[in-house]
Amino acid sequence: MGHATDAPGAEGSAKAAGGSTRAGARVLGPPRLRGFAAQVLRGQAQVTFLPSAVAGAVFCLALAAAGWEYGLYGLAGTAVGTATARLLGADRDRVGTGLEGFNACLTALCCAVFLGARHLSTALLALAACVVVTVVTAAVVQLLGVWGLPSLTLPYCLVASVMTIGAPGFRRVWHQGEGLAALPRHATGTTALGPAELARGFFADFAQIFFMPQWYVGALLLLGLLLADRRAAGVACLGSAVGIATAWALGAPAARIADGTTGYNSVLVALALCGVFLPARPATVAYALVGAGAATAVAPAMAALFAPSGGHAFTWPFVVTTLVFLAGAKSFPRVSGSPPAA
Amino acid sequence: MGHATDAPGAEGSAKAAGGSTRAGARVLGPPRLRGFAAQVLRGQAQVTFLPSAVAGAVFCLALAAAGWEYGLYGLAGTAVGTATARLLGADRDRVGTGLEGFNACLTALCCAVFLGARHLSTALLALAACVVVTVVTAAVVQLLGVWGLPSLTLPYCLVASVMTIGAPGFRRVWHQGEGLAALPRHATGTTALGPAELARGFFADFAQIFFMPQWYVGALLLLGLLLADRRAAGVACLGSAVGIATAWALGAPAARIADGTTGYNSVLVALALCGVFLPARPATVAYALVGAGAATAVAPAMAALFAPSGGHAFTWPFVVTTLVFLAGAKSFPRVSGSPPAA
Amino acid sequence: MGHATDAPGAEGSAKAAGGSTRAGARVLGPPRLRGFAAQVLRGQAQVTFLPSAVAGAVFCLALAAAGWEYGLYGLAGTAVGTATARLLGADRDRVGTGLEGFNACLTALCCAVFLGARHLSTALLALAACVVVTVVTAAVVQLLGVWGLPSLTLPYCLVASVMTIGAPGFRRVWHQGEGLAALPRHATGTTALGPAELARGFFADFAQIFFMPQWYVGALLLLGLLLADRRAAGVACLGSAVGIATAWALGAPAARIADGTTGYNSVLVALALCGVFLPARPATVAYALVGAGAATAVAPAMAALFAPSGGHAFTWPFVVTTLVFLAGAKSFPRVSGSPPAA
Repeated sequence: MGHATDAPGAEGSAKAAGGSTRAGARVLGPPRLRGFAAQVLRGQAQVTFLPSAVAGAVFCLALAAAGWEYGLYGLAGTAVGTATARLLGADRDRVGTGLEGFNACLTALCCAVFLGARHLSTALLALAACVVVTVVTAAVVQLLGVWGLPSLTLPYCLVASVMTIGAPGFRRVWHQGEGLAALPRHATGTTALGPAELARGFFADFAQIFFMPQWYVGALLLLGLLLADRRAAGVACLGSAVGIATAWALGAPAARIADGTTGYNSVLVALALCGVFLPARPATVAYALVGAGAATAVAPAMAALFAPSGGHAFTWPFVVTTLVFLAGAKSFPRVSGSPPAA
Repeated sequence: MGHATDAPGAEGSAKAAGGSTRAGARVLGPPRLRGFAAQVLRGQAQVTFLPSAVAGAVFCLALAAAGWEYGLYGLAGTAVGTATARLLGADRDRVGTGLEGFNACLTALCCAVFLGARHLSTALLALAACVVVTVVTAAVVQLLGVWGLPSLTLPYCLVASVMTIGAPGFRRVWHQGEGLAALPRHATGTTALGPAELARGFFADFAQIFFMPQWYVGALLLLGLLLADRRAAGVACLGSAVGIATAWALGAPAARIADGTTGYNSVLVALALCGVFLPARPATVAYALVGAGAATAVAPAMAALFAPSGGHAFTWPFVVTTLVFLAGAKSFPRVSGSPPAA
Repeated sequence: MGHATDAPGAEGSAKAAGGSTRAGARVLGPPRLRGFAAQVLRGQAQVTFLPSAVAGAVFCLALAAAGWEYGLYGLAGTAVGTATARLLGADRDRVGTGLEGFNACLTALCCAVFLGARHLSTALLALAACVVVTVVTAAVVQLLGVWGLPSLTLPYCLVASVMTIGAPGFRRVWHQGEGLAALPRHATGTTALGPAELARGFFADFAQIFFMPQWYVGALLLLGLLLADRRAAGVACLGSAVGIATAWALGAPAARIADGTTGYNSVLVALALCGVFLPARPATVAYALVGAGAATAVAPAMAALFAPSGGHAFTWPFVVTTLVFLAGAKSFPRVSGSPPAA
């Protein structure tokens, strides 16, 4: 019911850290600090389902490449989320593998990007939001646990949506005059896609997972994935390609494909459905790529649903598509590899 | 947890078709083709909860009476949905009674009506949507199964909503210029209802289940119901009458009553709550008619909820009302005929 | 899974009333009438989780102080809801402690406030809505029961939202010309909060639970709480203070704080999370106050979500925040006082 763990060493160090938590001795002494740091880095990497401190460190660099504030917000957010979960007595395995950090990482980043990273109000709100998203994570784990479904980035999507939709209602939080609420508009602009836009879009699909439009941020993130798990990196690349192909076939504007906004959900869906929550087999590769295409088709609908309230799609298309395809897989023995659960 | 089956012969032929699936021999040989055709026709009829191939054939004619493309989209959609479910290894009883076909039928029709039946893009998108709605159906069956609730047309409502809300975001899919997003407006126009409008509305309530406004399409659909199950036809007529009465009492514009847009949900609610998912008894007739009235009252709220994003109500009012009344019935022994499940 | 019961005598009289229901004798004879009246008064008090007839009577006076129609709608609504539940054979303990009345109370009030108390159409619609909200309550109890979560005012929020969003679609129901649908606007107006506004806001937070903006109505409601349960009254006061502090810190307009629209959800969240659904301990006080602050932050987002459809936030922020914090608490042994349920 959580993300896959394939780093036994990391697991061990997490256990050790947990052990000193229980003893209650030497608060933040060096070994404990080291354990906490590893949990935080793994928390960063769990955005792409990897409990890998190395990938987390590379992700951190990638964010800093987009702007040092973003690197800082992401890291601090993961730390606050992980610390809150420990303080509240959350499950130690979840904390150890970074599962209590990645929603907070994205939540803090969302504050920085949408409310302005350099306002003190943004920093304080991000701190509070990272505490709250930990409670929301626990709630979502309980609610989806009934169906044996993972919580994915749903907690982050909930908190980020509430925050961006509600922010213009608070004068000390919102510094941009008018809010963003508007009726959705139909797509305009050329759909002709050149090789340069294709390449930019391929990498930007990775960067947009963290709200960043720069292709080189995406390339760094892909490097992190490659270092941690080559199979996962391959699946993610397939997901990005399917996302671009679907968006092009349906007629999304080329500019939206090039900046990664049409395809980032496909990367996450492909990862989740092939190797993380379903076994990596030929049937699941096909199923995952159908899912990746579906997420791309779902994205503008989500954007249009939130537009009149001033909200954003975030990773809602990924969350909704993945939960549907995971729940559906239970009825399809050819996909799930086990007899139907109905 | 599925729709009621009261056609043992049909069940038998479904079993036979399933048997040859398992053997894997003679792909699409004549007997198997005949079995598949029966499943598809039953799938059409399951839109009104009937596992009857005869009713399905009449429904097909009714759609063709509104336009041959609609008959074709409906039939092809049901076939694609049923075939996808078989390919993925879905439960054979569900496939045999047509339960894997009706959501795909409505999804394909929705594409034809909202995106233009004669565009190649619409046909291809309908094909993809019918594959995806089969996965969504499996997911909804799993999710609602926790409460012992049926999936109804919820899968279709989800896919159709995503499609109509998202379509203007894709230039190769949307051929109508501006999207449909607009703030909801208050009702205008006379509420005085003449006998001609009354009669038209009564039949159009049936036609609008399939998005059609013509009274004679509705009359043909009612004929299909009558041929398959006279009691169900009677309950459906009561539902249509209650829908019209409620809409008139609340002050819906007469033109909306006459074209069936205010009452089609009532027909489906009455069918579902009296004889299909609850036993047909005096107490459930009353309960079903309260539900039919409630669905009529819920409809404009659903339309207003979707309007700013450019979406439609589809059969959301039916789905929401029926699920609430079915879940509620578990607490009321006088309605459900069994001790409370709380 | 229901609200706390701390009135054993009341429980007894409820049982007696239930007994005569079963016997079917002496419909509305004096002892039975007295039992029913106590159930109705307890139903009023359950809006703030108190199964206390005394508090219910004071609440009734408080509503009448705002306008006799409101007192009448509230009382009649509770009576209709309670009677419907008895008629449908709902659980007798729930009826006896008033748990079948409070959603109907708020639903009827909502009709009076939003549709105009003096229209005959409003009275008839309130009657129908109170019948339907009883079915919705039963459904929500079933649905949330899977997670062991209480239904709170979710049934009322659902019915009230449908009603206010859908009302402009019906000409005999809506008497105010244009509907209320509009894109959300950013906050304007001073955030400087004087002591008079502070005091007004503190009491108005109680009054707005019932849609009333008058501080003296809130003071009367607080009196009712004090008479029934002094600890609960203290927690509610803390909730109101946290709500005001959070709203001020985030920069809500002072006028919104003074009329209670920013803080009423905090009162309910504090009550629910400290002493009603979680044990009253130091850890839960802290948890409840974080929840009370979160509800205040969530409120403008809910308002913005409903604005384009013409809806209102009602007690949605309270419901959503409380359900999340209750579900989350199951994973935090330090808060729930028991081992994690995951």
